[in-house]
Amino acid sequence: MFYHMKELQYEAKPSRPDPFFAKQLQEILGGQFGEISVALQYLFQGWNSRANAKYRDLLMDVGAEELAHIEMLATMIARLLDDAPVGDKEVAAQDPVVGAILGGMNPQHAIVSGLGAMPADSVGNRWTADYIIASGNLLADFRANLNAESQGRLQAVRLYESTTDPGVKDMLSFLIARDTMHQNMWLAAIAEIEAQENIVVPSTFPRKLEKQQVSYDFYNLSQGEESSTGRWAQGRSMDGLGEFKYVSRAPAYGNSPVLNPAPEYVHDTLPSIRGPHIEMNKH
Amino acid sequence: MFYHMKELQYEAKPSRPDPFFAKQLQEILGGQFGEISVALQYLFQGWNSRANAKYRDLLMDVGAEELAHIEMLATMIARLLDDAPVGDKEVAAQDPVVGAILGGMNPQHAIVSGLGAMPADSVGNRWTADYIIASGNLLADFRANLNAESQGRLQAVRLYESTTDPGVKDMLSFLIARDTMHQNMWLAAIAEIEAQENIVVPSTFPRKLEKQQVSYDFYNLSQGEESSTGRWAQGRSMDGLGEFKYVSRAPAYGNSPVLNPAPEYVHDTLPSIRGPHIEMNKH
Amino acid sequence: MFYHMKELQYEAKPSRPDPFFAKQLQEILGGQFGEISVALQYLFQGWNSRANAKYRDLLMDVGAEELAHIEMLATMIARLLDDAPVGDKEVAAQDPVVGAILGGMNPQHAIVSGLGAMPADSVGNRWTADYIIASGNLLADFRANLNAESQGRLQAVRLYESTTDPGVKDMLSFLIARDTMHQNMWLAAIAEIEAQENIVVPSTFPRKLEKQQVSYDFYNLSQGEESSTGRWAQGRSMDGLGEFKYVSRAPAYGNSPVLNPAPEYVHDTLPSIRGPHIEMNKH
Amino acid sequence: MFYHMKELQYEAKPSRPDPFFAKQLQEILGGQFGEISVALQYLFQGWNSRANAKYRDLLMDVGAEELAHIEMLATMIARLLDDAPVGDKEVAAQDPVVGAILGGMNPQHAIVSGLGAMPADSVGNRWTADYIIASGNLLADFRANLNAESQGRLQAVRLYESTTDPGVKDMLSFLIARDTMHQNMWLAAIAEIEAQENIVVPSTFPRKLEKQQVSYDFYNLSQGEESSTGRWAQGRSMDGLGEFKYVSRAPAYGNSPVLNPAPEYVHDTLPSIRGPHIEMNKH
Amino acid sequence: MFYHMKELQYEAKPSRPDPFFAKQLQEILGGQFGEISVALQYLFQGWNSRANAKYRDLLMDVGAEELAHIEMLATMIARLLDDAPVGDKEVAAQDPVVGAILGGMNPQHAIVSGLGAMPADSVGNRWTADYIIASGNLLADFRANLNAESQGRLQAVRLYESTTDPGVKDMLSFLIARDTMHQNMWLAAIAEIEAQENIVVPSTFPRKLEKQQVSYDFYNLSQGEESSTGRWAQGRSMDGLGEFKYVSRAPAYGNSPVLNPAPEYVHDTLPSIRGPHIEMNKH
Amino acid sequence: MFYHMKELQYEAKPSRPDPFFAKQLQEILGGQFGEISVALQYLFQGWNSRANAKYRDLLMDVGAEELAHIEMLATMIARLLDDAPVGDKEVAAQDPVVGAILGGMNPQHAIVSGLGAMPADSVGNRWTADYIIASGNLLADFRANLNAESQGRLQAVRLYESTTDPGVKDMLSFLIARDTMHQNMWLAAIAEIEAQENIVVPSTFPRKLEKQQVSYDFYNLSQGEESSTGRWAQGRSMDGLGEFKYVSRAPAYGNSPVLNPAPEYVHDTLPSIRGPHIEMNKH
Repeated sequence: MFYHMKELQYEAKPSRPDPFFAKQLQEILGGQFGEISVALQYLFQGWNSRANAKYRDLLMDVGAEELAHIEMLATMIARLLDDAPVGDKEVAAQDPVVGAILGGMNPQHAIVSGLGAMPADSVGNRWTADYIIASGNLLADFRANLNAESQGRLQAVRLYESTTDPGVKDMLSFLIARDTMHQNMWLAAIAEIEAQENIVVPSTFPRKLEKQQVSYDFYNLSQGEESSTGRWAQGRSMDGLGEFKYVSRAPAYGNSPVLNPAPEYVHDTLPSIRGPHIEMNKH
Repeated sequence: MFYHMKELQYEAKPSRPDPFFAKQLQEILGGQFGEISVALQYLFQGWNSRANAKYRDLLMDVGAEELAHIEMLATMIARLLDDAPVGDKEVAAQDPVVGAILGGMNPQHAIVSGLGAMPADSVGNRWTADYIIASGNLLADFRANLNAESQGRLQAVRLYESTTDPGVKDMLSFLIARDTMHQNMWLAAIAEIEAQENIVVPSTFPRKLEKQQVSYDFYNLSQGEESSTGRWAQGRSMDGLGEFKYVSRAPAYGNSPVLNPAPEYVHDTLPSIRGPHIEMNKH
Repeated sequence: MFYHMKELQYEAKPSRPDPFFAKQLQEILGGQFGEISVALQYLFQGWNSRANAKYRDLLMDVGAEELAHIEMLATMIARLLDDAPVGDKEVAAQDPVVGAILGGMNPQHAIVSGLGAMPADSVGNRWTADYIIASGNLLADFRANLNAESQGRLQAVRLYESTTDPGVKDMLSFLIARDTMHQNMWLAAIAEIEAQENIVVPSTFPRKLEKQQVSYDFYNLSQGEESSTGRWAQGRSMDGLGEFKYVSRAPAYGNSPVLNPAPEYVHDTLPSIRGPHIEMNKH
Repeated sequence: MFYHMKELQYEAKPSRPDPFFAKQLQEILGGQFGEISVALQYLFQGWNSRANAKYRDLLMDVGAEELAHIEMLATMIARLLDDAPVGDKEVAAQDPVVGAILGGMNPQHAIVSGLGAMPADSVGNRWTADYIIASGNLLADFRANLNAESQGRLQAVRLYESTTDPGVKDMLSFLIARDTMHQNMWLAAIAEIEAQENIVVPSTFPRKLEKQQVSYDFYNLSQGEESSTGRWAQGRSMDGLGEFKYVSRAPAYGNSPVLNPAPEYVHDTLPSIRGPHIEMNKH
Repeated sequence: MFYHMKELQYEAKPSRPDPFFAKQLQEILGGQFGEISVALQYLFQGWNSRANAKYRDLLMDVGAEELAHIEMLATMIARLLDDAPVGDKEVAAQDPVVGAILGGMNPQHAIVSGLGAMPADSVGNRWTADYIIASGNLLADFRANLNAESQGRLQAVRLYESTTDPGVKDMLSFLIARDTMHQNMWLAAIAEIEAQENIVVPSTFPRKLEKQQVSYDFYNLSQGEESSTGRWAQGRSMDGLGEFKYVSRAPAYGNSPVLNPAPEYVHDTLPSIRGPHIEMNKH
Repeated sequence: MFYHMKELQYEAKPSRPDPFFAKQLQEILGGQFGEISVALQYLFQGWNSRANAKYRDLLMDVGAEELAHIEMLATMIARLLDDAPVGDKEVAAQDPVVGAILGGMNPQHAIVSGLGAMPADSVGNRWTADYIIASGNLLADFRANLNAESQGRLQAVRLYESTTDPGVKDMLSFLIARDTMHQNMWLAAIAEIEAQENIVVPSTFPRKLEKQQVSYDFYNLSQGEESSTGRWAQGRSMDGLGEFKYVSRAPAYGNSPVLNPAPEYVHDTLPSIRGPHIEMNKH
């Protein structure tokens, strides 16, 4: 169950309305790495967690915090939209600044949400659960979380660079600091788990069942051999179980495939156009 | 530019057709972490790369390999669909096995693609670029890549556990081994970069601009204190710049927000229903 | 079957082209509550209707009218796009008004549709059947319809406030009037049905099968008790079958859940990381 | 800010695993009218609310409760998935019951989420913010909410009819009861507002600006006059401001539209194919 | 404006209910090439048509007919769903045929639409306007229409092969015949236009502005030269303005690209990781 | 397998950065008919091809070329974004040109991709596999390909008309020329196949199974008889198997449908509201 407190986790007041920036700020509310994404990602990982209580509790703590961040951003965006102009070409033509704002703001902020925040990104794509990840494997998912916080802090920093509004910068400085913590936190959780199992996810699949002769080959499949100078092309593998090997000409282990003709009920292509029937799927 | 060779990177022949499993296998072709996702993710990262040639070359090498994996899976799926049954309730009623196959296969494999693979996942959602990530920041993106290979190997392993077909298992054992390499590879690339800059992405944002007093606090926002026992709640932070601190009662730094009434042209709500106008956005 | 007449239901002529406003007007053509949504919503409700002929006829009448509204908006948008400017930064730099129009118009109106209307909203999201509702239950669906006409009239009014073009305003005044009728109409249809059955949808589910002790409780789950002053927190319930009750501290009827560990073939998480196996799903 | 309590609002334990029903139950978790939809709909309405504190508090109370319902359903689905079978055609062929389960379950429950709930509906469409509504107008939005609770209760009842599991039925009986309350609640809130303003949304748009001569006409646009017998075709209008009028032959107020030819840079169609240029947009 | 007649264009009665086939039949109602797609595609082309009256009238005629096809399919699907079973694993286990139907039917047909047709395809993806095409260029769009009718007839034929129900086959035989006409019709319309202008769309772009030296080259970019034997690799080009030329080794006309480093405010990657700044964009 | 060469197929250098045009250019990279669409469309058709080697090789050749076009556009867009401005209302207000650029550029180019190209169209919709077509029937699919190249060249031409940048125009002149070739190529491939089979897709379905009496009727379903003057309304049908016939009043072959009432477990509508039960589905 959840309980809602009225206070914001941190203040969310712009120094002046700016519907133009409101549109941009939507990115970290309802975009691929916005707060809706991390909130629901952590909560679903927590609800689905079949692991020990420590990790489940961690996920619920951070999931609950991200709900508070959605709230801060929604509040900030609504305030940036205060008294947003509305208008057409005539209105835009009267004042270049109003014209630029009208051109640059999200029209749905006026028409659809009535000067409110929307569950959408900075170009108006509605948030979708395509963005979130919850696999049941903690190491895999914590890596997803580390990525989400890395992308999220990067976007918050880019927005910080784009605004001159002290109130907005103040709120972003808080969110950026929290992303610093959350990157550190997932790095710590990953380190804890990696200390107990092999770093290749999932660690429980017997290595002998994979085609081990290709488990540490780096295949050169593009012109130039600059990639041969990386750490991934030489030395002990990161999981400690093999040696990286740079393969300058990547081999083809398979044959050129020929598919069987389709059965007649599929009405693919005339026999006169198809090639001859080839006996296949013999092993 | 790209050049296509006819041979498959690895053999893709099932021991017998199985339209039921063909549907499941679509997940790692056209799902969130399928081969289309990693191929386009690495290629876009490469094309957008403003970094040194080593990393760009790495991305093009692996992007090209993932295109070969799309091809292997498309071929395998087409072969699993050979002579798939078609039918309605009457047909299904005649034979429980045929019925189960008809019930469990993807009807679009018959109606839409004519027994071919589709750019879709195991429930038929078409692939979308919502799945991919390319931010221009190498460390952030390599973490995204490590996650993608972790989720991808996990899904391939789960499919391996779900099939009894030696031909399918053989191909999956190759893909799983390549995912082993690719996890190792991104771990190596990450280690290289982390050796040169702070591990918090982006490392170039001046820390003094963030609200540093909250950069290492862990906020307890859920019942129970199990999360206090994790590494993230105590000791030196992973970035070496602070000390983790467990905050048992997370504070509210902000006030309870009250929004201004909407201007009249928005036609929100009657004044009699709204509360009083409140002077706000004063800093 | 449908028959198309050439005349528009109402005139759709702007006083001057305005590609900037054309973009905004797309909202009520192809947005969540645009005319495509209501047309297909009413038609699908009609086609699926297993009810008496009066309601089916009503749905077909209004569905057919909404097709005429799509047509009016498509015509208006095409005319607003007449001679829309095309250009890049250089062109935009030459004239601030042209620049604002270029910045604010939908580029797909030039590149994709060739100055025609699109089945999309004001930010370019393509129309999707996610927007429509047809459940087979008339009372539920008429409530959906009342909502659609309420949101639709609200958006049309906001667009009316945004334009200075007399021709556009004239057409909007017609659509707004029709939405007045359609809200009245669904209110009347709802009243007819509510007079015959309980107002809780679906009325045919035996109340004794629901957990009746919580059927009229209002749960306070957020700070502050302002919500206790509403009609929903006291007095006879609207369906006449109970008494509203304000519960200041919402109870938890359930336990803290613990999930079983995943079976091995799922490769979730190492046993050393999971907690102990717990006997569960005992009732 | 939000705080999470460990206890479920109500028990969520099936009497036995049933991956087949788990797929169906996803509908009211991640479908169009699932708990994610109502939770985020109420919360966004609350965050964007520029109205008095009573309604804002109401929205936060109910939004918080819906988060608890997401949690209950996620828990129930994870338990229904305990020890779900995995397999291909061979496995399915061995046992008709296993075959039917394999055919009928969502393969992503095994491959993607590792036996966890997903933010998706019963056919696997991921949840999207296309489903939710927050316009800033309380009366419009409360009608949206009444619809959501009507559709939601209907779906929960249909699922109740589909299961034989006492544990699942028990949880559904709780959710159905809460939907009873929530329909009553929105009906009460609507009644409160309708008592203060005209029932046509938005009530603040001056009626004289709409084309009032068509504000109460019912247009017959389909064969048959069954629709003429409804309340919407005669008598005082529901808003008390007009008289319903049944128009047996709906008039066309507009002309047959002819669009201007496209400018040359659009490369539409050869002049030889187009008709003559017609002077238009003259008012 | 549109007017609706009650009679179906053709009978839509199955010989027996079959919820399993109802799911499959959704493909040609709400799939990529279903009737919703062609109806809205033709209507939007018509509404946006700036061409002569003959083509506009053609588009409205066929658009209106496709609306009638939506209606036929919706009716057929509703009837196939009559008395569809509902149930869980227990119900499925009691009877293999019921189990197969439950496994193979679309659960939303029971839970969401109440045994009605849905605007969705055979796997449940909701219809989206991503499917439709209206560019303003008649030749381009008529090619799109020819494709749509080709894919549509192919899918209808595949469904015909999949059913044993005489009533369903009868309706499909009508739709297939209409698709025969519609392919012929678009072929005729295309022939009319191609007789008046060059067959390369758009014909009005001056050829001298394109890089004419590559306008008829076929580039071999894959292993094997089988493609050299096609008509496209030799002889007069189809537009009569050039000679096809087979180029066995496709040239690279461009250089290897190097992008400028990102400006600092983008926080891409450390200078130590980037390569040197390169003077570029010099022509 | 694929191999990547570093050189671009053609130069992709703008004469000056232009983030405004970068947004527009996204259309032919990631839009419905952008290069991602044709690349994946041809490759999937090739991988699924059960036809003779000539057509498979053709598809792989052109699919590989389209990958090179993605690369060219991604490079061009990244360069157009060099040093793109970032900012809010204040920044926009200082300079009308900067304001117009800020208003007209895609904010995700700054916030999300860090001045890189995105797999999205000109309004920011992410690319989706909804756009592509691969049915297994070569004639159907080659018609889809001809359409794709027609729409694609049309869009490239419109972009050519919109820019004043010589570098961009140069690259577009190359892409337009290649589209000239590709339209010619698909026309040639279509001609080859049509020479061997009937032009109605699929040619293998026995005509006697379709309702042949309506196979060549043109139904007038809209006001006005302008459509009667087209080639499609008279003379020999294009497939040579019938005579076109213009039917001025399209007949209704079916009855007015009445659906059975829903079973009780669906909870549709009260019996008092439904009409009487009607015996149906009798043939």
